[in-house]
Amino acid sequence: MKYKPGKHIIAEFKTTDNKLLLKSHSFKVLIDSLVSSLDLSKVGEVYHDFEGGGYTAVVCLTESHLSVHTWPEFEMITFDVFLSNYLKENDDKVEQIFNSVHDYFNPIEVKRTTLNR
Amino acid sequence: MKYKPGKHIIAEFKTTDNKLLLKSHSFKVLIDSLVSSLDLSKVGEVYHDFEGGGYTAVVCLTESHLSVHTWPEFEMITFDVFLSNYLKENDDKVEQIFNSVHDYFNPIEVKRTTLNR
Repeated sequence: MKYKPGKHIIAEFKTTDNKLLLKSHSFKVLIDSLVSSLDLSKVGEVYHDFEGGGYTAVVCLTESHLSVHTWPEFEMITFDVFLSNYLKENDDKVEQIFNSVHDYFNPIEVKRTTLNR
Repeated sequence: MKYKPGKHIIAEFKTTDNKLLLKSHSFKVLIDSLVSSLDLSKVGEVYHDFEGGGYTAVVCLTESHLSVHTWPEFEMITFDVFLSNYLKENDDKVEQIFNSVHDYFNPIEVKRTTLNR
């Protein structure tokens, strides 16, 4: 493929800080803060909290998207973020978002895949 | 990580059928049909059509998510679909969705990454 859209990080976190996995509110605050400070453009989002705890969310950006899904019963989170470099170079921002989300969940185990798509 | 949530396919397509990349409407019809026929649960979605053509979309499922972003100027699509196996085994459905979206865009070039997360 000639055109290379951008960097996509796909990660699994295991944490012992299980209360962070129950409700999406604080995660949304973090993401809104990142979107604002990194000058990204959100065009929509879905945050869905499951009864009994756990949440699933996607945030749609003009630059692409990010998603999170939590499994409190397994103390596990899946997260991914993909930003295209169409109008400006965003690879550093992908790393910044990954690092902030990583630190938020305070994981004891991390599995990370990086795709330069 | 002890818990293995499920399969995630991440793909880039190059097509010469550029009109499919301009507006999201027909793609949404396809996805709604797949969500229904595969008995998945949509909890929200964002479809954003850019002025001048091209679209970006995310669909949030209780089973996880899918996303698409199109670049008509490069005749290129990025697509990914991730379904967890939490309540039932969904690996086959990930393949079915991938195959349907692949056929929809009628690509002349495909790059596919499969993660068993």
